[in-house]
Order: sequence, then structure tokens, then C-alpha cells
Amino acid sequence: MPSANASRRSQEKPREIMDAAEDYAKERYGVSSMIQSQEKPDRVLVRISDLTVQKAGEVVWVRARVHTSRAKGKQCFLVLRQQQFNVQALVAVGDHASKQMVKFAANINKESIVDVEGVVRKVNQKIGSCTQQDVELHVQKIYVISSAEPRLPLQLDDAVRPEVEGEEEGRATVNQDTRLDNRVIDLRTSTSQAIFRLQSGICHPFRETLTNKGFVEIQTPKIISAASEGGANVFTVSYFKNNAYLAQSPQLYKQMCICADFEKVFCIGPVFRAEDSNTHRHLTEFVGLDIEMAFNYHYHEVVEEIADTLVQIFKGLQKRFQTEIQTVNKQFPCEPFKFLEPTLRLEYCEALAMLREAGIEMGDEEDLSTPNEKLLGRLVKEKYDTDFYILDKYPLAVRPFYTMPDPRNPKQSNSYDMFMRGEEILSGAQRIHDPQLVTERALHHGIDLEKIKAYIDSFRFGAPPHAGGGIGLERVTMLFLGLHNVRQTSMFPRDPKRLTP
Amino acid sequence: MPSANASRRSQEKPREIMDAAEDYAKERYGVSSMIQSQEKPDRVLVRISDLTVQKAGEVVWVRARVHTSRAKGKQCFLVLRQQQFNVQALVAVGDHASKQMVKFAANINKESIVDVEGVVRKVNQKIGSCTQQDVELHVQKIYVISSAEPRLPLQLDDAVRPEVEGEEEGRATVNQDTRLDNRVIDLRTSTSQAIFRLQSGICHPFRETLTNKGFVEIQTPKIISAASEGGANVFTVSYFKNNAYLAQSPQLYKQMCICADFEKVFCIGPVFRAEDSNTHRHLTEFVGLDIEMAFNYHYHEVVEEIADTLVQIFKGLQKRFQTEIQTVNKQFPCEPFKFLEPTLRLEYCEALAMLREAGIEMGDEEDLSTPNEKLLGRLVKEKYDTDFYILDKYPLAVRPFYTMPDPRNPKQSNSYDMFMRGEEILSGAQRIHDPQLVTERALHHGIDLEKIKAYIDSFRFGAPPHAGGGIGLERVTMLFLGLHNVRQTSMFPRDPKRLTP
Repeated sequence: MPSANASRRSQEKPREIMDAAEDYAKERYGVSSMIQSQEKPDRVLVRISDLTVQKAGEVVWVRARVHTSRAKGKQCFLVLRQQQFNVQALVAVGDHASKQMVKFAANINKESIVDVEGVVRKVNQKIGSCTQQDVELHVQKIYVISSAEPRLPLQLDDAVRPEVEGEEEGRATVNQDTRLDNRVIDLRTSTSQAIFRLQSGICHPFRETLTNKGFVEIQTPKIISAASEGGANVFTVSYFKNNAYLAQSPQLYKQMCICADFEKVFCIGPVFRAEDSNTHRHLTEFVGLDIEMAFNYHYHEVVEEIADTLVQIFKGLQKRFQTEIQTVNKQFPCEPFKFLEPTLRLEYCEALAMLREAGIEMGDEEDLSTPNEKLLGRLVKEKYDTDFYILDKYPLAVRPFYTMPDPRNPKQSNSYDMFMRGEEILSGAQRIHDPQLVTERALHHGIDLEKIKAYIDSFRFGAPPHAGGGIGLERVTMLFLGLHNVRQTSMFPRDPKRLTP
Repeated sequence: MPSANASRRSQEKPREIMDAAEDYAKERYGVSSMIQSQEKPDRVLVRISDLTVQKAGEVVWVRARVHTSRAKGKQCFLVLRQQQFNVQALVAVGDHASKQMVKFAANINKESIVDVEGVVRKVNQKIGSCTQQDVELHVQKIYVISSAEPRLPLQLDDAVRPEVEGEEEGRATVNQDTRLDNRVIDLRTSTSQAIFRLQSGICHPFRETLTNKGFVEIQTPKIISAASEGGANVFTVSYFKNNAYLAQSPQLYKQMCICADFEKVFCIGPVFRAEDSNTHRHLTEFVGLDIEMAFNYHYHEVVEEIADTLVQIFKGLQKRFQTEIQTVNKQFPCEPFKFLEPTLRLEYCEALAMLREAGIEMGDEEDLSTPNEKLLGRLVKEKYDTDFYILDKYPLAVRPFYTMPDPRNPKQSNSYDMFMRGEEILSGAQRIHDPQLVTERALHHGIDLEKIKAYIDSFRFGAPPHAGGGIGLERVTMLFLGLHNVRQTSMFPRDPKRLTP
């Protein structure tokens, strides 16, 4: 503030003070001091989703992020966001706001968190860009609670734009690595919020349905002393002066619980696979929803329980998460997920016949390749109109050593996979519960008996016949929503090339 | 079967055949072929717990373990067990059973699984040793489904005997290593069945209460790229060509979810601590029940939610698991768990005053030792009659770098522990949500900023004030039931010396 006249300068107040003096609203805005639990004000913060015409005329406090801001003369329009909900807010020069206050509001960085006091006003024309279309907030006070840095690594609007639309219009979309590198921001989008709310809605009915069926929830150790399934694809852990491994599945422990009379058990937990697979559906760490159950006479008793549990999950999602499904569909359009009751169960030989009819050449004891699984999914959908089915009676040769052989056909086994939209989401089987037979089968597979001694010993003191399976949570979410990459449905995905954030 | 007379031998049928011919019951018993799902009989298996006088006169099928057997002349008494329920069964020579059949039944190894057909009969004198005291089963058919080896590594009756009783009477009890080495059998005892059913009953209301409060369940990665809390006590994993670590807590990820607008999150999952601690309450892998929540103005909003959740769990356990509590108490006698509503909250300085009054010398900024925690628990119980309380406002010096300092007293912090029967079950705090302050505090603690860059960066794009905490599941189970070792409440415990089974 240069001035040539010292006497005049001394007579005048400095410019800042003068401006502040002129600012009749100066107490009504600013940057709050950090919330350190200094006080417990009895202020009620209202949810944005509750701002409707019923509240018109009321003065409310709201805490929200600044989603966008746009200054226009003596006004500033903000969009305030709270999770998937947003509302328009107006700061306009007048009784409550000064021009300095409008300028302050206009300069708040996007994604900052603010406390706003305002009057709820009904609007004449619906605000199409907000979830709260019938009201706006006339701001009387605005304080920044937590500032965002000015430059965001990605724009939320870009991150929810359908790829096709972005391409057509030449507008930006966000690539997967940028999303994952900046997951804290990417997870704020309406699409991400919807995906993970829905995923939380898979675990809940899984446990609810099984608990009602008499299952007990168990916790199984993840650090194990020997590689449970042969030794390939297992992560090694330094365990004090020795080595240990990360469990590739809770199977051994689920089976031990069956041998320990828990009869029906389930668990939800991390599963680790040291596979160097860089595909759309492989992670090195994923969440397994695991089931194991003693049955009376036939493993189909278990297959039916598992299929019914999945059907209960699908029904629950379609009933309680329509908003989330529609939100995701806006960005990733997809046909609704279809399933039958009771669930379609095909035998492996029937699937082979369908594939052969479609021109695929496959041996009777050959496993399904990923393209053939997908083709089979399309054939099944055409013929039976379902996105979910069970494939039963896999060839014994392609299943692990602990799989019970089919007593009526030594080349078949009492094992099954379950598929959603042509991709495997569960693999399971009747397990051999006889120590003699499981020993024979392990030898046949060339497995070192010493390494699986504890496993075999579990069956020596009376073991009920039992079967089970493991479901990949991220795959279920991905395929239910018709997404195309399992990294979209893992909050912090792990693959051979990604360990952060 | 030696015989001197060949002609006589040839005239006679061989002894075995003769016996078989004489055995009018030979179709009524035997060893079944392995259940390989050969058939789906429509036989209904009745639960032992359903065998009551209402069923008297009915013929039923039961599948159960042979808990004990005792032959007595022409009779054999079996106790059949199914989880925590058992019933007496009688095989007696008569219309249905031959002497060979009685002998067969008497020779079945304990812990074998059998299918039994029998008539439910009301008894005149209550059978005190069984849960089904008013009826017994008159066996008509008995088949072994899965044989146990003859020599059990531990006896179930020994494994449930109270230690004092065993010592007084000179009868056997089972030491902890034998139990854990043979966990499949140890878990079959009524005490173990009760402990783990109750534990499953902790996770359920934890999730239920939080879901009803609007929390979202999340899944956080266990393999991480940098040691989150400084680097001590962390397990190293070989991750393809690099090293990674096992997460010591989900805290970073819970906080990232808060910064990503999920507002209130919880997760249940394994937590890994490479501490070489061989105590009654330390495991190298345990189950964490974790909570993180954005609050409006004061972290006590979060403390109250957590305390209320624990109170809901305690109430649920006392309401729904009385049988299990009593079963465990038979072996491990203990006073019922007491708690107040609302939960007692003491400040650290108040606790110090109580301890000093009891003769303990402690500095203002000194942490509580384990013996002092226990003493404090006794003092609090005497004064307030509660086994559960919150200790608030720990000295800043004894808490991690990310703990929010108390704005009114720079030597205190906005942090808290929760205690059950004088032992810590939860540690928590308001976290610093400001990137500048958390950087300062990390430097003060001598932490390499490069290693926690991702953590600090999470707060750069607007972060709400938040607080949380982590609960150790096994400790809650142990302390609620008044047990004395956390290995009793972990199905397959891991400590520096134990990685198996």
C-alpha cells in the first residue's frame, strides 16, 4: 500500500483494517481453528438428504464438502456434497453476506469441508444437477473446517463419466491407475460410494442367512506353518527365526472345525495367493466368504444351502440397493442380474455337450478355459435365462487331492463350481473325510505326506462327511454389477504390481 | 480256531459262519461303507436335544459320537453326544439285538460317529450324567459312520474337569499344550463349544449395533508396502521380488475411508504383531474389531458410540448365552460380568489419584504398567461396582504420533483405553486430521516422513475430524468369561512359540 503522504497515511487506517471495518459480515465466515474437541456446542448438523421442502424457511447447519463453486457478480453458487447427496447453496451480497464473504466463499478450494448456516428455500425450477432438486440453501454463515489443497489429482466429475460419453464428447475420464493412486478421492465418487455400500450389503445377508440356518461364525489363522495346498503360489512370512506362510484359504481350519463338531461354520476373511496373474479378475489378496458343513448322506445338501444363501444375497441386493445399482449403471450400463429358484444345476458332461454343440473341441477330463467358461455362460443364459448356475461333477483329474471321487464314476468327482455371468465365483466339493483315502489321493498327486500330516490326522478321531466352498467377495460384487475389473470392487486392491496405497 | 478233528471240522460249519447264522441281528449293525453321496435316503436324523418325553415311544434315527460305552452282561450302555447335548442309549440282547450286536456296540471306539435307530423310552429315574435326563434310546440298529482310532490323545472328561477338583481328587486334567496340539478334540468339549459359540455371539451384535447406527462394513488389506506404525514388531512378507509387511492394524485404511466420506466404518479381521511376548494376553495374530468415525465437534461423540456398542454386546451375551456362560463357569468359576449405563468414564489424572492413594508411586506422564492396570481395575470395581470402564485423557507422551493433543493441556491427549476386569481391551483416540500438525508430531517422534507419506497425504484434500479404536476379540471373550489365557479363546492361537495346528 504505497503512499507518498505520511501525514495522510497516519490519519488513515491501513487498508486491511478499513476493509475489515467495512465488512459487516466478518464474523460470519472464515477458516475455523482445527477441531481438537475444544468444546461441545449443542448445534445440530442436518443431513443434506433431509433438506426437502418440508424444511423450507428453517435455518439449518450443514457440514459438507464444497463439490463445485461458481461466482457470478455479487453471488456465489456452491454445490455442497455429503456422500451421494448434494444441494445447491447461494451466498449473495445482502443482509447476511458482504462482498468479501462472497469472495471468500468463491475462493474455497473444491473438496474442502465447510460448516454452513443457511435458510432452506423452495426453488421454482428444479435443480437438475443436484439430488436435492426442490430446495436450495441461502447461506448466512460459512466456515472452512478442513481445507483441500488447490490442485486435485483427479476431478470427481471426470471420475464418474461413462467412458463412451467421455470419448464421444472429447471430455476427460480417469484411468484406473490414477484412480487407485488417489483412492481417497476416487472413493468419494457416487459410483464408488454405491459399489462399497452394496458390497457391505453382501456380507450382511451372507452372515444373516447362515446364522439363521444354524451356522457358527469362526475365525481362522492366516499365518500357517506349512503351505496347505501343495506349496505353489504361497507367500512366505519371516516368523521370528523361522519361515511361515500366508493361508491360501481357510479350508484346513474350516474342516478341523467340522471334525471338532461345530457342524456348520462360516468365515469372512482375507485369502492370499502369490500368483503372478495380471488379469481383470485376479488379486493377490482378496476377501473369502467361506462355508463348510457336515451333511447327512449327500453333498447336495450342502450345495443347496450355499446356492440358497447366494440367492438370498441377490434378492437382498435387488431389494435394498436399487439406488446404488442405478448409480453404478449410470457410469457402467448393464443388464439386471438374473437368477432362478431353485438354482440351475448342470452336470459337467451336460456343459461339455453344450460347448461341443457350439463347436468347441474338448476332452472329457479337460478343465474349462476362461474363454470356454464365458461362452458356456452365454449358452446357459440363452437356454435357461439365468446369470447364475451351478456346474456339478467336475472331472476328478482337474480337482485337488482332497476332493471326494464320485462312487458311481471314478473319473468324476463330487465337486462343483458356481458361476455368475459366466465367471467362477465359488469352487467347492465334498471333502474326503477318511484318513486312508485322503492319504492315497495325496500320494497319487505326488504330495509330501509329511507336510499335510496335521490335515490327515484331523480325520483320525471320527470325522463326519462334509462339503463346502469359498466365494470371492470382490468377484460377486463385480459380476452382480456387471463391472469389468475386480480392482473396482476392492477398496485397496493388491496385485503383483500394486501394493499401495 | 484250532481243531484236531478234520472230519468233524468238515461236517461242521466254520465257527464264523455258524455265529453269523445264529446272529439274527446281523443286518442291524456293522461298519457302514464310507459316505460318498452314493444315495439320498429320505431318512430323517433327529437332534439329540429334541429327544424328550414328548417323543416317548417313537422310533428315531440319530447321528452322534460315542461319548462313552460300558458293557454289563447282556447290555451295553452308550452315551451318545452331539455338540453339547448327550443321551443314554441301551443295546440289550432281545428281539432287536443279538449278543454279537451288543459286543459290537461295546467295542466301538470312543469318539466314533454312529447312526443309531432306536425307540425313545421315558426313564423312571433321571439320568444325571446326560443333558437328556428323562429319556433313553433303546437301540434297534447301529452302524459306524466314521471310526475313531482306539487311543485318544486326550480324554474329553479330563478336559472339562475344573483344575482344583482334579488336584483334590488326584484325577487327571489336561494341560494347555496337549489341548492345543490336539485342538480338534479339545474343541469338542462342552467348554470349548460354549466359548466359541459365545465368541460368535460377540461379532454378531458388534456388526448389528454398528450397522443400525449407520456404519459401513469395510475390508482392508493385510499386505502393506510400509510398516504403518514405525516399523517395530512387524512381520515381513516376500512379495514377488520385493518385501512387504503384515498390517499391525487397519488404522490407516479406516482413516482413509473416513477421508473418502464413508463417515462411519467398521471392520473385523486379523491383526498381526511380531512381538516376542509370551504372556497370557498376547498373540502374534488376533482378531480386531475396528471402528472409525467422523464426529462433529468432540471425540466423546465417538467414545459414546463405542461404549454403547460394547454395552449392547454385553447385554446380548447375558441375554442369549446364559447356557454357555454357565457351562464355562462349571469348569472356570467366575463372578458375572458387571457394567454400568452409561459407561463409567474416568480421566487419567483421576486414576493416578486412586493409585497414589493406594500407595503406588507414579509420575504424571507415566504409562500404566500391567500390574497397575489390574490394581486400578480392582479399585474401580470396589468404588463403582463395574468391570467395564473408560480411561480418558492419557498423557500425550505415551501415545502414538497421530494422537490429537488436548487443546487445554499440552501434556494430555484426546485418547482413551477401555478396560474389562482390569485389562485393556480397546485403545483409541481422536486422530490428527491436519497434515501440518501430524507432520510435526511425526518429526517429534523421530519417524521417517517418507515412510508415512501416503498416510499424511490422505489428509491433504479435506479431512473431517475423526476418532476410533480397535478391540481385541479374544480378550473380550476371555475377560467377559473370566478366563485367564487368551489361548483359550483363540481357536488356533499363534504366539512366538506356536504356529500349529
